[in-house]
Amino acid sequence: MYRTHTCGELRIEHVGKIVLLSGWVQRTRDLGGMTFVDLRDRYGITQLTFSMDEQPELCRQARGLGREYVIQVEGVVSERSNKNKQISTGDIEINVSKLSILNASQTPPFTIEEESDGGDELRMKYRYLDLRRPPLRENMILRHKTALITRNYLSALGFMEIETPFLIKSTPEGARDFVVPSRMHPSEFYALPQSPQTFKQLLMVSGYDRYFQIVRCFRDEDLRADRQPEFTQIDCEMSFVTREDVLNTFEGLAKHILREIKGIEIGQIPQMTYDDAMRYYGSDKPDIRFDMKFVTLQSTQESIHLIRGGHGFKVFDEAELIVGICAQGAADYTRKQLDELTEFVKRPQIGATGLIYVRCTADGTFKSSVDKFFDTEELGNWAQHFDAKPGDLLLIMAGKHEKTRKQLNELRLEMGTRLGLRKKDDYRFLWVLDFPMFEFNEEDKRWYAMHHPFTSPKQTDINALCKNPEHVKANAYDLVLNGTEIAGGSIRIHNKPLQEAVFNILGFSPEEASEKFGFLMTAFEYGAPPHGGIAFGFDRLCALLGGSDSIRDFIAFPKNNAGRDTMINSPSGIDKQQWNELHIQHQKHISS
Amino acid sequence: MYRTHTCGELRIEHVGKIVLLSGWVQRTRDLGGMTFVDLRDRYGITQLTFSMDEQPELCRQARGLGREYVIQVEGVVSERSNKNKQISTGDIEINVSKLSILNASQTPPFTIEEESDGGDELRMKYRYLDLRRPPLRENMILRHKTALITRNYLSALGFMEIETPFLIKSTPEGARDFVVPSRMHPSEFYALPQSPQTFKQLLMVSGYDRYFQIVRCFRDEDLRADRQPEFTQIDCEMSFVTREDVLNTFEGLAKHILREIKGIEIGQIPQMTYDDAMRYYGSDKPDIRFDMKFVTLQSTQESIHLIRGGHGFKVFDEAELIVGICAQGAADYTRKQLDELTEFVKRPQIGATGLIYVRCTADGTFKSSVDKFFDTEELGNWAQHFDAKPGDLLLIMAGKHEKTRKQLNELRLEMGTRLGLRKKDDYRFLWVLDFPMFEFNEEDKRWYAMHHPFTSPKQTDINALCKNPEHVKANAYDLVLNGTEIAGGSIRIHNKPLQEAVFNILGFSPEEASEKFGFLMTAFEYGAPPHGGIAFGFDRLCALLGGSDSIRDFIAFPKNNAGRDTMINSPSGIDKQQWNELHIQHQKHISS
Repeated sequence: MYRTHTCGELRIEHVGKIVLLSGWVQRTRDLGGMTFVDLRDRYGITQLTFSMDEQPELCRQARGLGREYVIQVEGVVSERSNKNKQISTGDIEINVSKLSILNASQTPPFTIEEESDGGDELRMKYRYLDLRRPPLRENMILRHKTALITRNYLSALGFMEIETPFLIKSTPEGARDFVVPSRMHPSEFYALPQSPQTFKQLLMVSGYDRYFQIVRCFRDEDLRADRQPEFTQIDCEMSFVTREDVLNTFEGLAKHILREIKGIEIGQIPQMTYDDAMRYYGSDKPDIRFDMKFVTLQSTQESIHLIRGGHGFKVFDEAELIVGICAQGAADYTRKQLDELTEFVKRPQIGATGLIYVRCTADGTFKSSVDKFFDTEELGNWAQHFDAKPGDLLLIMAGKHEKTRKQLNELRLEMGTRLGLRKKDDYRFLWVLDFPMFEFNEEDKRWYAMHHPFTSPKQTDINALCKNPEHVKANAYDLVLNGTEIAGGSIRIHNKPLQEAVFNILGFSPEEASEKFGFLMTAFEYGAPPHGGIAFGFDRLCALLGGSDSIRDFIAFPKNNAGRDTMINSPSGIDKQQWNELHIQHQKHISS
Repeated sequence: MYRTHTCGELRIEHVGKIVLLSGWVQRTRDLGGMTFVDLRDRYGITQLTFSMDEQPELCRQARGLGREYVIQVEGVVSERSNKNKQISTGDIEINVSKLSILNASQTPPFTIEEESDGGDELRMKYRYLDLRRPPLRENMILRHKTALITRNYLSALGFMEIETPFLIKSTPEGARDFVVPSRMHPSEFYALPQSPQTFKQLLMVSGYDRYFQIVRCFRDEDLRADRQPEFTQIDCEMSFVTREDVLNTFEGLAKHILREIKGIEIGQIPQMTYDDAMRYYGSDKPDIRFDMKFVTLQSTQESIHLIRGGHGFKVFDEAELIVGICAQGAADYTRKQLDELTEFVKRPQIGATGLIYVRCTADGTFKSSVDKFFDTEELGNWAQHFDAKPGDLLLIMAGKHEKTRKQLNELRLEMGTRLGLRKKDDYRFLWVLDFPMFEFNEEDKRWYAMHHPFTSPKQTDINALCKNPEHVKANAYDLVLNGTEIAGGSIRIHNKPLQEAVFNILGFSPEEASEKFGFLMTAFEYGAPPHGGIAFGFDRLCALLGGSDSIRDFIAFPKNNAGRDTMINSPSGIDKQQWNELHIQHQKHISS
């Protein structure tokens, strides 16, 4: 037996007991005749004491213990004179009578504390040491709990977790597939799933009614910061449901997770159309922890003309769109702060040409960067339109429609951050509804599915499908949390002719469609029920629950931005025999 | 809204309620002026009635419904005059007032009933229809429940489910890897995990103490019947544990699953050494639902000589081993039955040259196939040694040690089946302990790890490691259920020198060992705790709980014996662009 208790378990009521503990040496301190060792495991830290007077040999041995040594001790639980209220075992210590070193340790390459002194690369290479640090351990516990809570919640609602295959088939739509060469079938490949989409739809055709799976998915994309080639989804599908059924069910899940994990009760989740999200926030995933909605002063699209022309201000005169936000209480922003904001929107990532401000001063007058073009009455009109109060700051941008909205979105988020309106412990969900069905890609000159090709158009828009794809709305929805998309789904197509029509718009020939998705369309001919579903990005959800922007800290063994696991050194070469068995060789020159 | 209730929900107390149901048409029957439709969903079957007198139009529409049509009906719940006690909704029926066809169906290619008329291939191609059949649906529900129960049980014991990566590194030991070519790193590959073995050990080094994961694993092996290239494990690891700690913990899990899933209380699980399993059952996974232990009459290995020589029976005189079983109450086996048994052991899969029987007749005499060599006294001695009673049948085989034991194992299982001693609802677990550490492969002339190279030798055998690898026992254990291995595990090596020594015996050069497993051996130098674990074959476990020998019926979308998914037609070709992006081409000729 290695231990009678863990290092987080002993309390004042255990005093007098002889116990056996095992764990890691967090630190040792010599104080005169006493040596103190903090012994750590997953459950906590327990103080060990060694007395030079009573057991000099043992005490000398304890003094020789290095950081991260694995030891086992036997001793008696004693009340501490100096109680430590910071830790759960702080009332007691162990007077050690036996000590054995279970495994020595080299000095770790970085400190294993709340904050480490190790750089990213070093900590990735020694990930197993980084995982010992309390923040990462807490992240893994949070992830475990969230998964378990989700499984129990959905199971109680009659959802069945059904495992779908990982060795599937490469399909032309969506992101790039990882593929697996087949040894038994030369020149043929399996593909790793980007999601279990078609399989979960087949399970609906099979009558399983309510499916879920917490499942790994794969995308061979160029990695941006905080994107992983393998990621985890909470994947769900339901039969005989309308959009409202799906939204209600997963609103329930979101509330349950927040309640269980964060102890927070969230009210009903508001809903917003995609069009409104773009109009009021310039984003399909608005952060609604703060208001600061867009106010349009001029729009050629919407025929809004609140700015009288003829002032000679070219920026406005030539703009398709003049739109702004009202930053409450920010009228006292200094010249320097306003310059910073202008620099912020002019950065290449955002690419604006400038920024107009109007300070609504406390005395009811206005100070603006366009004072020489617009008089106080005009500025007053704007302020009224913004519903601005004295003390507020208007920030206005002008230019092309779409571009300007996106730029103002970035500015809005920046102002939210600067004004402290984006609190990590404030959890605001939002449903975004009625996404466009298609988006046109100017490079390829073709339509792409905005969600995926299995998404149903809204019933009312089906007639417009072939003639005006640009006007068709999808029966698709996203769940946004604090400005991040954490789930997306749709009501699916469940009949063959409609699915064929959508494939046709997406530029698939009937042959291609049949080769890649024939099994699904055939399945639709054998009694497919109406169905719909949703998938949550589980890594992202955990990161947000943990108050972090980085998913990497919520994955036990993530890959770096080059898709490499530097700890195990993967990917790596394989044997000549493996190449041969798979009937492949390295491509000497790209054939065209 | 598609439904107010499911098809398994309505009871006598709902009579009078107006309800909305959706589901599949199981069958329609016309009885004079009435048409009856059985409406099916995952939850049950509800009878719908249509009256030609009252609603002729609706009734005609109902008569046109084909099998597996998806329909929605509105109607009033009524008490049935002819109650059906077989189904949970058998007290009621729905008098339908509205009917809409949600989706038509072609006639399914096979019947969707308890037993289908479709062949294996057809049912695999239309797997989504086969999955509608009640037995498969029950299997999926059992699998879902078993997974959920396992997760909750282990979580309550402090185990954390931690997801390990799927894109890892190809290693030389064990089965063949599936590999994934890297687009970003030409000529380099990821490998899909055969198990998360090294990662779970690293999690122990990280101090996570108790880990589990229900996780997909992959092996690119030539497929035998009932082996799948992807399969699921309940993968577990614990720190600061001895073998007994691991056995106790997972004995608890096994008991819990049997209690929750089958309503069966199993007692303490017996333990047997590998040596005893081989001696008494000729198998490392004995089926202990029945006794029928091997009895050795002669063994050159063990110096047992219970048969007096000089009888001129060459088969015995030349045998290293003479060993048999006593089939209780089978003395009345006919000549024909005994011939069948002889044919059974002579089949090429078993390969025995013959079978000797001794009938212990009711009157205390003996009838044997070797009567002319052995007299009654001699046969009586044997019978006594077998502890045989009048009415029993002795079946004896002779030959080389290992081969004969294996042959007798097959015969024992066959006799168990013939005598009705292997009942599907009788669940007998057995721990098999103290496996040999290594096995020598005569072809390669090298040692292989019997479990895997991370398994610790028994403490007492460490000294023999280099000199006598054949004598070294591993601290490894298997959990056997009804003659099938359902779990295997071991206490692991946790220090670098011992791991290096084992790699050395397995024929790895220090460079190879370091290239493939350097990360693990480095990890052992930073405070690795003693640890051990186990992995359950989840597909197999579910099959046994479902009373089946076939794992395929417990996997939603299995592959066939050629590793092919005939439903989606995978593996399949990929685009020229994909080949190019992966820097690979088809190998024109095998380079040597």
